[in-house]
Amino acid sequence: SPRNLRVLLDMDGVLADFEGQFLKNFREKYPQDPFVPLEDRSGFYVTKQYYALGQDIGTKAFGIYEEKGFFLSLQPIEGAIEAAREMADMEGVDVYICTSPIKKYTHCVVEKYQWLDKHLGKEWMERMILTRDKTVINGDLLIDDKPNITGGMSPPQWQHVLFTSWHNRDVTLQGGQVRLDGWLPHSGWRDILERKRQEINK
Amino acid sequence: SPRNLRVLLDMDGVLADFEGQFLKNFREKYPQDPFVPLEDRSGFYVTKQYYALGQDIGTKAFGIYEEKGFFLSLQPIEGAIEAAREMADMEGVDVYICTSPIKKYTHCVVEKYQWLDKHLGKEWMERMILTRDKTVINGDLLIDDKPNITGGMSPPQWQHVLFTSWHNRDVTLQGGQVRLDGWLPHSGWRDILERKRQEINK
Ligand SMILES: [Mg+2]
Ligand SMILES: [Mg+2]
Repeated sequence: SPRNLRVLLDMDGVLADFEGQFLKNFREKYPQDPFVPLEDRSGFYVTKQYYALGQDIGTKAFGIYEEKGFFLSLQPIEGAIEAAREMADMEGVDVYICTSPIKKYTHCVVEKYQWLDKHLGKEWMERMILTRDKTVINGDLLIDDKPNITGGMSPPQWQHVLFTSWHNRDVTLQGGQVRLDGWLPHSGWRDILERKRQEINK
Repeated sequence: SPRNLRVLLDMDGVLADFEGQFLKNFREKYPQDPFVPLEDRSGFYVTKQYYALGQDIGTKAFGIYEEKGFFLSLQPIEGAIEAAREMADMEGVDVYICTSPIKKYTHCVVEKYQWLDKHLGKEWMERMILTRDKTVINGDLLIDDKPNITGGMSPPQWQHVLFTSWHNRDVTLQGGQVRLDGWLPHSGWRDILERKRQEINK
């Protein structure tokens, strides 16, 4: 009998707008400093581009997302909440949240749970998987904006759906990857899930 | 070529002495109330036995492990830290921590990372997997004191090594389970790992 499709959803850059909030906070806190406009973002690690503007600029950048309240304050990516809810209600689909804390975990970890509470509901903590290594998490699809996801298991079980973000627009897809340009209906996210669901139950 | 053995280590009841600290704190906070001696523990959920002593007793019990500082204060299980370190240094073995937060995650989640910092070192946060569903975590062995671990994947990939705790001493092993009576050298934990490592590389 057919088994459920298991979808792993990244948070930052997929459900939660890390890039937008980061820039907003940086510009508010350091109005006199140079910054990296969203359309100039390139490369997964935002601090790298800020360090290129100056050692002190890079240090300030780190501080922005290490600050208490940062992760809780992230705005939902457009259409993300509606899509996550719809996905979780789909027959034959199991949804988990698969997210990595930053190294300075002090505020980040609890705030990621609080963010799920706030935007999706208390019961979503049951779906949460917090991990630095996503390759050892079992799933059919991992929807994640980080272009190159590596870890202890090679290859991982999941197919990587590269969720388009400012920093990865020009990245060439690696073998097996498919792109997802957002959560709005025309993005085709439902088709990606349906195709995979048929593939696993062939 | 042989692949690494992936070992998932539970925290509460395997690395960290949840039961001992729970009882100690309960008796200190409620010296006039009935309690459940460790040797009388039966059934995974400690609060269930406390509720059987009275509704108010059960409520007090919940409060003990929901309190700020509880998870951070847990003493290491005898031999656990040494074993975890040795396991992490073993050739051909990858170690992850696989632990579930309580529903009231407020203090629990950050304190579990802090506990790893304190007892094993800062780099161990890289090995942390926080999840309510352990069945969707990829591993060869899950060392865990909870007798019946279920979730979205059935059967899970890992073989369950039932780590003996006060509450599970009389539990009959289910198919595929093996027992591990602690971390001291005579417990045979190294043999369990070695046997599994040969099995996966046959
Ligand atoms: Mg992301
Ligand atoms: Mg346990």
